[in-house]
Amino acid sequence: MTARRVVITDVGPRDGLQNQQKILSVEQRIELVKAIAAAGVPQIEVGSFVSPKAVPAMASTEQVFSGLRCDGFATPTVALIPNMKGYELARDAGAKTVTMVLYGSEGMAQKNASMSMAETEAVTLDILVLAKEDGIKVIATIAVAFTCPFDGSTAQSTVTQLVAKFLEAGADQVVLADTIGAANPQQVRELCAPLVRRHGAEKLGCHFHDTRAMGLANVYAALESGIRRFDSSIAGLGGCPFAPGASGNVATDDIAMMLQQMGYETGIDLNKLMQASDLAQALTGTAPGGRAKAWLQGHLIKQAS
Amino acid sequence: MTARRVVITDVGPRDGLQNQQKILSVEQRIELVKAIAAAGVPQIEVGSFVSPKAVPAMASTEQVFSGLRCDGFATPTVALIPNMKGYELARDAGAKTVTMVLYGSEGMAQKNASMSMAETEAVTLDILVLAKEDGIKVIATIAVAFTCPFDGSTAQSTVTQLVAKFLEAGADQVVLADTIGAANPQQVRELCAPLVRRHGAEKLGCHFHDTRAMGLANVYAALESGIRRFDSSIAGLGGCPFAPGASGNVATDDIAMMLQQMGYETGIDLNKLMQASDLAQALTGTAPGGRAKAWLQGHLIKQAS
Repeated sequence: MTARRVVITDVGPRDGLQNQQKILSVEQRIELVKAIAAAGVPQIEVGSFVSPKAVPAMASTEQVFSGLRCDGFATPTVALIPNMKGYELARDAGAKTVTMVLYGSEGMAQKNASMSMAETEAVTLDILVLAKEDGIKVIATIAVAFTCPFDGSTAQSTVTQLVAKFLEAGADQVVLADTIGAANPQQVRELCAPLVRRHGAEKLGCHFHDTRAMGLANVYAALESGIRRFDSSIAGLGGCPFAPGASGNVATDDIAMMLQQMGYETGIDLNKLMQASDLAQALTGTAPGGRAKAWLQGHLIKQAS
Repeated sequence: MTARRVVITDVGPRDGLQNQQKILSVEQRIELVKAIAAAGVPQIEVGSFVSPKAVPAMASTEQVFSGLRCDGFATPTVALIPNMKGYELARDAGAKTVTMVLYGSEGMAQKNASMSMAETEAVTLDILVLAKEDGIKVIATIAVAFTCPFDGSTAQSTVTQLVAKFLEAGADQVVLADTIGAANPQQVRELCAPLVRRHGAEKLGCHFHDTRAMGLANVYAALESGIRRFDSSIAGLGGCPFAPGASGNVATDDIAMMLQQMGYETGIDLNKLMQASDLAQALTGTAPGGRAKAWLQGHLIKQAS
């Protein structure tokens, strides 16, 4: 990975769909994942192994995995897991990479996972041991790494210690998640730049929501801090069912456009990405769609005039 | 002005209203200007002196000025002018600061002003001489300073030379305008950082549109380059009637929120600003409204839960 290479993980089929009123079928979820992959997005979070009672949209994620496997799907996939049971389900479904969620605040740990921060840490350490035996990669995502809707600002030292602890324990990557879209670019820079210097860009990622129009500003601040891995969501689908005030993730549409125009390599074909975005909007009926589409259409208008 | 002080000029009553389907009355325009001032915005572009045939929403701008003067309005105001006739009308209306538009491309100069770039430069030089005699401040705004919808990317050297030429000729400030919202943060940094080093932050400003969700990313890149003056538009009203693909300006709502959270001083009261934003939306029926409001409301919900 060169300094101009940025790796996008589209989390729309998980973080996006879990917040939609409309619940998609397994076939529709597979169709969306394939459309995102066809645009060249290098990694896709295809679902989560959570309680179907808590998050009905993520029921039958094992069928999404098996359907993709039967079709010889080649793009690396990720499954989000909330606990040990989720890990076992993901492993049994054939997941090669799992994302386990840690928390920057007690309030969010309780609301989102019904555990204390320490309990999620202990479970993640157990999962890391098993995953090593099972040959499964583990991404540790720190939710509310910047601000929590219940507990307020997250201390930088809390996050810094979590990052060091879990990379040392063998996590393949740690993702800093602005779960509710409350971070500002200065805060992003202050948290990320020292972490990149200490651990290297390969080991770190960022996950931003565009709740307050600051999504791409935070991406830019993270880029300037050396971060080269980002989560984003096709068509800006997203939110968090347990985090008041959270709206859509940064749209893959928008981040891919910005990165391309800034000369970064993402491997993404913008025109094919717009097709995936159209599909996400058609399937859900509610996706905001990012802004890239209107822009690219405006461009076409311009070239015709 | 300290390095943490940022001066916002709200251009909504001009750049915003000129693009609305609904044409506001003089009284409504005055009401909006007063609401923005009540929130502590330090400078407001209250209208333009352009042909009422070309831009009907800006007809009777002289009445907006006289109405504000009669009411003892104290916040500094700005009038946009496209040419010498506009200058004379603005002066006669009692404007103390005018913004004259220069162009980074021939295509946009022709479409927007029916002049060549050289003609707009010559007129602006003439205006600078008169304005000095009249005791009127002149802001020179360089339209399409980053990218033109007709001619493509604007050469950095074109803009750099215009900035130097007009500051040397006596312009009080030069504003770099991303008229169609096509700039990316890297481009902003590459253009702005050398200009701030050469001319100082007092003499420069930036004007961004949020067409592609990059508005605040560009503001952050400009801040990091040392820029401390920004145009923005209440409730994200905006666009450009002659620039295809342009949508709203960066919302004052959003930039004020971001700056406050990053510890910059703007003098703006966010709650009162939301009232001005509500008014802008009520008056026009179409303003996008920025995101700050949803966020602040979410915050209230959170504190109640």
